[in-house]
Amino acid sequence: MRIVIHDADAQAYQRLLQAAFPDAEVLTYERAGAVPADYLAVFRPPEALLAAQGPSLKAILNLGAGVDALLDSPALPKAVPVVKLRDAGMAPLMLDYVLYALLHFSRDFDLYARQSREARWQLHLPQSRAAWPVGVLGLGAIGAQVAQGLARHGFTVCAHSRSPKRLEGVECLHGDEGFDQLLARSRVLVNILPSTPATQGLLNRDTLSRLPQGAVLINPGRGTAVVLDELVELLDAGHLRGAALDVFPVEPLPPESPLWHHPKLLITPHAAAPTPVEEAARQLIDTIHAFERGEAPPSVDAGAGY
Amino acid sequence: MRIVIHDADAQAYQRLLQAAFPDAEVLTYERAGAVPADYLAVFRPPEALLAAQGPSLKAILNLGAGVDALLDSPALPKAVPVVKLRDAGMAPLMLDYVLYALLHFSRDFDLYARQSREARWQLHLPQSRAAWPVGVLGLGAIGAQVAQGLARHGFTVCAHSRSPKRLEGVECLHGDEGFDQLLARSRVLVNILPSTPATQGLLNRDTLSRLPQGAVLINPGRGTAVVLDELVELLDAGHLRGAALDVFPVEPLPPESPLWHHPKLLITPHAAAPTPVEEAARQLIDTIHAFERGEAPPSVDAGAGY
Repeated sequence: MRIVIHDADAQAYQRLLQAAFPDAEVLTYERAGAVPADYLAVFRPPEALLAAQGPSLKAILNLGAGVDALLDSPALPKAVPVVKLRDAGMAPLMLDYVLYALLHFSRDFDLYARQSREARWQLHLPQSRAAWPVGVLGLGAIGAQVAQGLARHGFTVCAHSRSPKRLEGVECLHGDEGFDQLLARSRVLVNILPSTPATQGLLNRDTLSRLPQGAVLINPGRGTAVVLDELVELLDAGHLRGAALDVFPVEPLPPESPLWHHPKLLITPHAAAPTPVEEAARQLIDTIHAFERGEAPPSVDAGAGY
Repeated sequence: MRIVIHDADAQAYQRLLQAAFPDAEVLTYERAGAVPADYLAVFRPPEALLAAQGPSLKAILNLGAGVDALLDSPALPKAVPVVKLRDAGMAPLMLDYVLYALLHFSRDFDLYARQSREARWQLHLPQSRAAWPVGVLGLGAIGAQVAQGLARHGFTVCAHSRSPKRLEGVECLHGDEGFDQLLARSRVLVNILPSTPATQGLLNRDTLSRLPQGAVLINPGRGTAVVLDELVELLDAGHLRGAALDVFPVEPLPPESPLWHHPKLLITPHAAAPTPVEEAARQLIDTIHAFERGEAPPSVDAGAGY
């Protein structure tokens, strides 16, 4: 059995997988180049590696929750199942990020940061949690945990998914009507949707202006969901109070981007939920064992894009 | 029965107390001036109001958790019990503040803010909760809830009080030896101590330098606890990574203070836990009812200072 790894953390994955499969040939792409394999464990793999695959390939294991880059690759062997990481310890990290951004705006830390620059002492009385209803877009493994985590923290949380779902402590909406309802009532909109043809550009002038006056956007999901120019328009016009952006259509965000210096933006470098290598490796190992036993672990629906 | 109120929110308290005691004379100091009363409901009262009190005064109700300003007043009638607000909805606000500050540093938002100013995209991999042990100083009604709230959020929390206490989920230390242990192991030090002769200047060059390299101070307690010059020295020398300061020895912090612009400080204007008027009024009403029934509600130990 040969496993080829392509990832920023390839060496750590190699060490962990080799220990779990001592008889296998576990290689990094950096060392081995574009060679055929039984399993690929990859994030944003080069086309040459995908193109080099032959009939031995049993599965492509995606080292992250977002499979958009992989599915977009013209060299992707269509018949081979793609398995993505499910949470892998990313949800608690994502929840921390969202909670921080939520407190940043709801407890006026955004205003206090501006006041500090002006050496200005001015108290803003905190509003209750009830004044900050949260809407979560996307109820995958991570989105569901973020929604429930915010609810446990005392926020009123409503969440939206394509198909109906149920989640304790969270009001679940679905479909177009549910989407409209969620926009109308969310003072904080949290995007945890995957990047698919249906979600690209979803958060634009039309949809964001349907949020209540003074609302806030938190996007630790995918950068393609937001039409940045239109978001900035709504910030500058005062309809939106601020946004926390962790992801961007082009990453890294170029140094010349004016977004870095926009006073209403909190910018982080795709830092909300880096894949924790050890937990991810455990999932990879379980998945490979399952394929080797002849099972078919849950795989990505290439049509839906997640 | 006459109740005199002195507070920034005096009118709101007047309305709520008058509704609860329709037969009483409920006055604001602003309107009535320094007149004798049965009850004073006050925060940082003027000396004239205290000096005007006679034998009718049954209790002084302090509109906040910190009684230092009141106890320091030379006009304070010594024989009259002082009752302070116990939590009154302040603990959840305080917990939010501490959690925000903790995430600010432990999830590298302090670094990302600096990077944003330089338009620099650089990821810092998050360390686990275990790398951020928290020490809480002060286990009053608010401190205990903050310590347990942080523990519920997955942090390892150890807390210190003068006398031994027990608290589920939190390791409780006490006495001088306990204080030394807490300093040695806390990467985050949270000060929720009252301002008393024993706590003034407690966080100084000596004590703060016993925190581990790269530690962080969070102070939503009282400004007098911290020797600011020595804190800044330790920040500039790199021993401490940063500090979140909500309270200061002199408030408002003057516009000319260099602290406003220190890159390692998060400054807020005594905003962590403003007293929520409605919950506080409920406590005042209960306390006055208890005194009127001839009971003796728990009051402040003027010797200890809290």
